[in-house]
Amino acid sequence: MRTDGRKVNQLRDVEITRNYTKYAEGSVLVETGDTMVLCNVSIEDSVPYFLRGQNKGWLTAEYSLLPRATQDRNIREAAKRKLSGRTQEIQRLIGRSLRAIIDLDKMGERTIWVDCDVLQADGGTRTASITGAYVALVDAINFMLDEGKLEESPLKGFMAATSVGIVDGTPMLDLCYEEDFKAQVDMNIAMTEAGEIIEIQGTAEEHPFTRDELDQLYDLAEKGILELIEEQKLELVGE
Amino acid sequence: MRTDGRKVNQLRDVEITRNYTKYAEGSVLVETGDTMVLCNVSIEDSVPYFLRGQNKGWLTAEYSLLPRATQDRNIREAAKRKLSGRTQEIQRLIGRSLRAIIDLDKMGERTIWVDCDVLQADGGTRTASITGAYVALVDAINFMLDEGKLEESPLKGFMAATSVGIVDGTPMLDLCYEEDFKAQVDMNIAMTEAGEIIEIQGTAEEHPFTRDELDQLYDLAEKGILELIEEQKLELVGE
Amino acid sequence: MRTDGRKVNQLRDVEITRNYTKYAEGSVLVETGDTMVLCNVSIEDSVPYFLRGQNKGWLTAEYSLLPRATQDRNIREAAKRKLSGRTQEIQRLIGRSLRAIIDLDKMGERTIWVDCDVLQADGGTRTASITGAYVALVDAINFMLDEGKLEESPLKGFMAATSVGIVDGTPMLDLCYEEDFKAQVDMNIAMTEAGEIIEIQGTAEEHPFTRDELDQLYDLAEKGILELIEEQKLELVGE
Amino acid sequence: MRTDGRKVNQLRDVEITRNYTKYAEGSVLVETGDTMVLCNVSIEDSVPYFLRGQNKGWLTAEYSLLPRATQDRNIREAAKRKLSGRTQEIQRLIGRSLRAIIDLDKMGERTIWVDCDVLQADGGTRTASITGAYVALVDAINFMLDEGKLEESPLKGFMAATSVGIVDGTPMLDLCYEEDFKAQVDMNIAMTEAGEIIEIQGTAEEHPFTRDELDQLYDLAEKGILELIEEQKLELVGE
Amino acid sequence: MRTDGRKVNQLRDVEITRNYTKYAEGSVLVETGDTMVLCNVSIEDSVPYFLRGQNKGWLTAEYSLLPRATQDRNIREAAKRKLSGRTQEIQRLIGRSLRAIIDLDKMGERTIWVDCDVLQADGGTRTASITGAYVALVDAINFMLDEGKLEESPLKGFMAATSVGIVDGTPMLDLCYEEDFKAQVDMNIAMTEAGEIIEIQGTAEEHPFTRDELDQLYDLAEKGILELIEEQKLELVGE
Amino acid sequence: MRTDGRKVNQLRDVEITRNYTKYAEGSVLVETGDTMVLCNVSIEDSVPYFLRGQNKGWLTAEYSLLPRATQDRNIREAAKRKLSGRTQEIQRLIGRSLRAIIDLDKMGERTIWVDCDVLQADGGTRTASITGAYVALVDAINFMLDEGKLEESPLKGFMAATSVGIVDGTPMLDLCYEEDFKAQVDMNIAMTEAGEIIEIQGTAEEHPFTRDELDQLYDLAEKGILELIEEQKLELVGE
Repeated sequence: MRTDGRKVNQLRDVEITRNYTKYAEGSVLVETGDTMVLCNVSIEDSVPYFLRGQNKGWLTAEYSLLPRATQDRNIREAAKRKLSGRTQEIQRLIGRSLRAIIDLDKMGERTIWVDCDVLQADGGTRTASITGAYVALVDAINFMLDEGKLEESPLKGFMAATSVGIVDGTPMLDLCYEEDFKAQVDMNIAMTEAGEIIEIQGTAEEHPFTRDELDQLYDLAEKGILELIEEQKLELVGE
Repeated sequence: MRTDGRKVNQLRDVEITRNYTKYAEGSVLVETGDTMVLCNVSIEDSVPYFLRGQNKGWLTAEYSLLPRATQDRNIREAAKRKLSGRTQEIQRLIGRSLRAIIDLDKMGERTIWVDCDVLQADGGTRTASITGAYVALVDAINFMLDEGKLEESPLKGFMAATSVGIVDGTPMLDLCYEEDFKAQVDMNIAMTEAGEIIEIQGTAEEHPFTRDELDQLYDLAEKGILELIEEQKLELVGE
Repeated sequence: MRTDGRKVNQLRDVEITRNYTKYAEGSVLVETGDTMVLCNVSIEDSVPYFLRGQNKGWLTAEYSLLPRATQDRNIREAAKRKLSGRTQEIQRLIGRSLRAIIDLDKMGERTIWVDCDVLQADGGTRTASITGAYVALVDAINFMLDEGKLEESPLKGFMAATSVGIVDGTPMLDLCYEEDFKAQVDMNIAMTEAGEIIEIQGTAEEHPFTRDELDQLYDLAEKGILELIEEQKLELVGE
Repeated sequence: MRTDGRKVNQLRDVEITRNYTKYAEGSVLVETGDTMVLCNVSIEDSVPYFLRGQNKGWLTAEYSLLPRATQDRNIREAAKRKLSGRTQEIQRLIGRSLRAIIDLDKMGERTIWVDCDVLQADGGTRTASITGAYVALVDAINFMLDEGKLEESPLKGFMAATSVGIVDGTPMLDLCYEEDFKAQVDMNIAMTEAGEIIEIQGTAEEHPFTRDELDQLYDLAEKGILELIEEQKLELVGE
Repeated sequence: MRTDGRKVNQLRDVEITRNYTKYAEGSVLVETGDTMVLCNVSIEDSVPYFLRGQNKGWLTAEYSLLPRATQDRNIREAAKRKLSGRTQEIQRLIGRSLRAIIDLDKMGERTIWVDCDVLQADGGTRTASITGAYVALVDAINFMLDEGKLEESPLKGFMAATSVGIVDGTPMLDLCYEEDFKAQVDMNIAMTEAGEIIEIQGTAEEHPFTRDELDQLYDLAEKGILELIEEQKLELVGE
Repeated sequence: MRTDGRKVNQLRDVEITRNYTKYAEGSVLVETGDTMVLCNVSIEDSVPYFLRGQNKGWLTAEYSLLPRATQDRNIREAAKRKLSGRTQEIQRLIGRSLRAIIDLDKMGERTIWVDCDVLQADGGTRTASITGAYVALVDAINFMLDEGKLEESPLKGFMAATSVGIVDGTPMLDLCYEEDFKAQVDMNIAMTEAGEIIEIQGTAEEHPFTRDELDQLYDLAEKGILELIEEQKLELVGE
């Protein structure tokens, strides 16, 4: 029995709100349980220095926790004048995951900025960021297509991400903060709708895990991600 | 006739949502027109070094724009590893304004953190921050009273803030971004419900203004602030 | 009776020394009582990135306290590797005030750097900076005119600034540090010689103030600023 | 056929030199092919603030590339005054991997500093760092035991790490830089001698990979890691 | 014949103004030709962390150029958020030179802060800083003796510093900026009144110099420093 | 009798290993006693902004201690996000010394980067850096000549550097850490093979020193440097 009564292979409720703010080309508020992340996608008509003149685009992600997104107030990274290792690790993960689903050669010399700002953190903020940012990315790409700035979509398909872990010896899907806090193994996976792996990051917090446990975690993640992709499709088509 | 059809002495619609996030002692989403600011108030059981042992509290404010709160994406201050002068000026204004309404000698050795994060910016973000943060502050103080951590409220009364300005030669209340952009005079005022001034900051962007114009701006601000305080009361009592 | 025997509407002695250093296009040491500020104006033949190609100029100000300008030594901001909020607030105030008195469209693509370095601080350093920097600006503009680099003066007229405040319930002109320290209300005003307002910044340190008190402070400031402008004129013409 | 003639499941030559420098409690130069990493382990008699008084130890890792460890000179992070995301990601990986193999409750209030400085980088620097740092950690622990500062070893067993990847469609063990540069999938794994997973981090650079490919990569990694552990044992026992 | 008509072994005019500002325990404006440096000495009743509990004092120096102390405006180090190598080298030189003339064991647990701020730079700012700071240090020590905070003077004697160099093949004393700019050899020396060396720093900008040239430079420096010490004595005794 | 049994005018054993790493144009590991410094020279096909278009080259040096190069672990400057004054002073010394031996007008618009990374520090790291970096510079220049990128060598001759000092009243050559720690006078000298001075930096740590002592230190340094140049020649020719 889990903290919040879910089954071990059950996702928390997911809510995806599109057009949450008015300026961004794509703007999505994603909620999974009590985790709330605002995912804004912006398109800039230039690329970083190292890519100029190659007629291809770039995608980069930034991630931040609002100071009181967490139980105890965390100090702003702007005030500390540095990004923590955790933040950098997460924004690199989000960026890599989304770059794997888009053909940057079809973007022209443009940069896609993905901003994931966590309003409330209850576990799984990095995977919620990926799942929500993907929807905002679709909206931004559709905006570009509608404006005639792109001729064909550079997107290769759907994708989403979730966390899995082993808590009190039991593999589980979509950990909330309380579960995450006491997990022996913590894993984040991003996948395509074909069930192919984009990113897998697993960590033994204390106890190394077996290949068999890896397989069970993989199964849970695959089930959850396919459900999340259903949710994304519903939201994008049901409009 | 104004951009959005308002009269010169008319505020934009105001929406105050309490308990917007679950961890903060006070959490308010304030919307004035399209400006959206999340105001979280946190209570920490210690004071900065320079105040230790004096048995009094402290209140400090932080302000930040999300990267795509604005028409063009702005670079995160964490990424730039410094706070802009504009940000520092605003967070000092918010902090001073709220400190004027609270008796810090009655807070014990505690720090009140006021975090104002702008989700969407359409003019007047600093005054919306003050107006919303005041409500979150009331909630946080009431939480402390309910928990028995404070015996009496340190608050001295109600307060709110608004912007006024001279646009195309006409004094106006509560400028939206488009008006603010072309204003000749830009002024922010915070007041108590007794109509007393807490802060007044007026700037001639190009054309110095007369004492008579100062008087007209003052009248507009006073009218607006008293309406905002009505809104605050409604929200705090109607719960 | 004031700390130093002045009347409530009396300025401290003002001393303006032009050509204090030899390299700057304009160099003024301004002393108001024991407050000493070195104001150097430099002209650079380029503008910041965001203004290039618009055939107009820019003016920006920097302000700094020498470490032992104050009673207790203050740590250098270079050593702390950040500018304090106070410094940024002040240098923005100085820059805005001077930009209001100059027509930047007549400057060509040049940047005017205004450096205000406080050698000794005894209250009113930001307004002394403005008053002194204005004289250095006149000298720098005249230098440009003499060199044939400008054809007509971009200056719109005279301006100066002073502080006023309420101390022990009494409105007063030109606060020294001791008065400033215990003031209930602290206000800085910059005006033109026509008595029009360029900047007004008033803060209730503890007790909000009434509209009537605002009026009294305004009257004091206006009297002081007109006297300061007389002093500037004397110094600039008596050469 | 691989760039350097190896079989797909073949490690590069490994050289482990203990006591490479004289001051560190454990000092190992590890070479895998042309990759050279100096791994120094230092013991400090205190713990970070958040752990004080809990009678347990801490282990933290730092990683750095010398400027000309790479084909093109890279700018020092000290000169840039920030750590790159890549560096932070790597040092977090090294730290987590080693913390999983040590019982910090048996360390007393001590911090173990693991410094991995890359003298020459030819692929696999992060996994070589883990493999070499483990040996330096054993030496440092033995030093503490010999000195009587620890009564029993806090180490839980052997561990090592390697990289695997898919290059031109073929899964391979221990990628050199040239292979890594063109890999479609890049994975780093740390394991115990029992073949249990400590860390797994797999990234699809362009093409998502299947579960079957994950299995093949896992097999290669397991084979390589067990060989590396043999090498560590030989070096530690054959002294 | 030198730029300014001096003989090769002639110092520029020296002016030492004591009590230049009112807060510092010692405050000296030193002028050598057109070089102007404000040297303030502050006494703080604590020592840096690494010296606590040893009942001895510390002396540290800071050096800064005002932005328009130089022909072209230089960017503030506070704005660049780092100290240049030149600044650090100079402040270490000033600190070491003054520490050599004071017995820190007789200072109690106090820190002496020496702030050298260059108002105008025309060559020799670092040696003028040392010469002027020494006088400010004497004043600060005398202040401490008068206040009864020290029982005996920790000063070991007089000292001063000057620059020498080889310009167009000719060794010269006390280079102004124009000479310094084209010097082949540049040397700074600090000495006691007994003619003993405290610091010697000589650099061949382009042409290495011979031992014979070193001897000639030494002779010039010794002559100049003894004259500077006369000047210091005159100023300190003639009060 | 010295700590390690050497005579007062005796150098420690010197070992120069060329081609220590494979990417740099010049790569030397220099060992003097237990001091080990890796000196890599890189050639970049551009110059800093201030030299562009002048058809001349630049040489700049960077210096760093690995964290456990020292008895106690020192904190990385990248982690502190600033360079210490000591580091900046040393890298300026190395850069100036090497620039004095090379004709930068013959380098074309190229930057020579000299990276000196100390693997183990037992005194004399800055002078060992200069001595080793000179050999790496010769290798890098020869590489450029072989590649046909330079037509003639810009090098003006041989040079090396050593430390001398006064320990327990006795002048000595090439201080190890233990001697350096208790030295009354500490001096670093760089010279050409003609015995001409490139840099001389002498510091009285506590006791000012006489001209006669300066002469003795000079003699020791000259002897040592000529021996070091013999060593360099042997290594460069004996290949």
